[in-house]
Amino acid sequence: MDKIQNGWFSEISEFWPGNSFSLEVEKVLHHEKSEYQDILVFKSKSFGNVLVLDGVIQATERDEFAYQEMITHIPLFAHPSPKRVLVVGGGDGGVLREVVKHPLVESVTLCEIDKGVIEASRNFLPNMRVGFDHPKVTLFIGDGMEFMRQRKGEFDVIITDSSDPIGPAQGLFERAYYELLKAALAPGGIVCSQCESMWLHLDTIKGLTTFCKELYPNVEYAYTSIPSYPGGSIGFILCSMGGSTKVPVREITPEVQSQMQYYNGEVHKASFVLPQFAVNKLNL
Amino acid sequence: MDKIQNGWFSEISEFWPGNSFSLEVEKVLHHEKSEYQDILVFKSKSFGNVLVLDGVIQATERDEFAYQEMITHIPLFAHPSPKRVLVVGGGDGGVLREVVKHPLVESVTLCEIDKGVIEASRNFLPNMRVGFDHPKVTLFIGDGMEFMRQRKGEFDVIITDSSDPIGPAQGLFERAYYELLKAALAPGGIVCSQCESMWLHLDTIKGLTTFCKELYPNVEYAYTSIPSYPGGSIGFILCSMGGSTKVPVREITPEVQSQMQYYNGEVHKASFVLPQFAVNKLNL
Repeated sequence: MDKIQNGWFSEISEFWPGNSFSLEVEKVLHHEKSEYQDILVFKSKSFGNVLVLDGVIQATERDEFAYQEMITHIPLFAHPSPKRVLVVGGGDGGVLREVVKHPLVESVTLCEIDKGVIEASRNFLPNMRVGFDHPKVTLFIGDGMEFMRQRKGEFDVIITDSSDPIGPAQGLFERAYYELLKAALAPGGIVCSQCESMWLHLDTIKGLTTFCKELYPNVEYAYTSIPSYPGGSIGFILCSMGGSTKVPVREITPEVQSQMQYYNGEVHKASFVLPQFAVNKLNL
Repeated sequence: MDKIQNGWFSEISEFWPGNSFSLEVEKVLHHEKSEYQDILVFKSKSFGNVLVLDGVIQATERDEFAYQEMITHIPLFAHPSPKRVLVVGGGDGGVLREVVKHPLVESVTLCEIDKGVIEASRNFLPNMRVGFDHPKVTLFIGDGMEFMRQRKGEFDVIITDSSDPIGPAQGLFERAYYELLKAALAPGGIVCSQCESMWLHLDTIKGLTTFCKELYPNVEYAYTSIPSYPGGSIGFILCSMGGSTKVPVREITPEVQSQMQYYNGEVHKASFVLPQFAVNKLNL
């Protein structure tokens, strides 16, 4: 709790040295050390309730929709027929909430290592926990790597909604994990993973895209703006065993579009257009 | 200087309540109260030298190119023949640096109210002050509103590179200023102004776009990601007396493109694609 001083929570990390985002705290709602990490939930003055893992903001009620919609709907609208979906991480339930907006989806499995995160969301993030209550959802509490080893050719879309590559999520940024993901995909399947900020971690992104290009026929990178993440944006690596993921291949119905606050078909396409410095470095 | 505590500069403002961006300070390089505002320059640990006016970050050496390139090249590449350019504000010189990359530009005038800002840049922001040394540049130290009243039908592009609508720049966000801008434009002219963050100030943006639509045939809104501005992005209002500004109308030469770190033709087009929540509100 020492990251709260004078009524402000500050996100200070060696993973983004010398810069920090802060939120004014109205009230601490929950704090525990789980088996895997430090879990903090506070009510902020201007960003709603905030979930923090190991000192890093995971979701605020004010802007979480940008992340959840983009990490979910880019791969799902890039797939012609996403029936079986796997989410690794995502214990706050926000990605599940987005996945089940797709009528084509028949089942979605969530594999989260830390049940403390799910409990914190169930208790304090009502707009995200709704994802858990859908009849198409199956929960698996356990290690994502372990889970993946047992699944072959099963999933049309796999979304990795992880924290940063320091702490429990470290393995989810390594080549071995992307080999397991590939094996778990059904033909034409698509992987979409949280993949940091091009402003702050371009070397990390370059490393991932480089080994992924050895594994997958199509490797692409998209991003979204989101104020509460370091640098104000976050990116996604898209690895496809089918075609490019840059363009939606299915129409979005007016009913589904009306549930979106960030995503639409034009946003989908624009999210792959990277600043020149990232184009130069990633050479995708 | 009370915004620097424990070696960190924090940007706390009632204009974005409850959230704050902070940079670790290596050394304060300059601090003065000019006739108009508080001017601070410090060397940061990870964002290079930083210019701060009235407690608000205006430019950091690490990411200023995103803002300067986008506020400049969107209107200049949307204009078929930009010969005479006016910059209101922009005392750090960064926009001038970008304008003179266009061989078609014959003259560029900078109208800055506070010569203290120009001096601070000349002394501490070497990569921005280069804009002042170009032979096509004319400096005018004085009030932008006053300057505009005397100019009619003169400029192909007018860029307003201002601080926020609190303090000396307040008038630059009002209808009367946009009436003067319109009168100062040559036929087919384009205005591009700093216009805040759609995440934090959507009501302000809505207000501007609403009165601008009464004045100009084409009103559009674009944005760029930039870590050191509140919310991690900043937008621009584009008002055109000619056609849409969403698409570049001239080819960028390889030589000019090689000088860009953020802008390219695809980025130009993508910067106008807004998240659904902004589409719903702005209705442009």
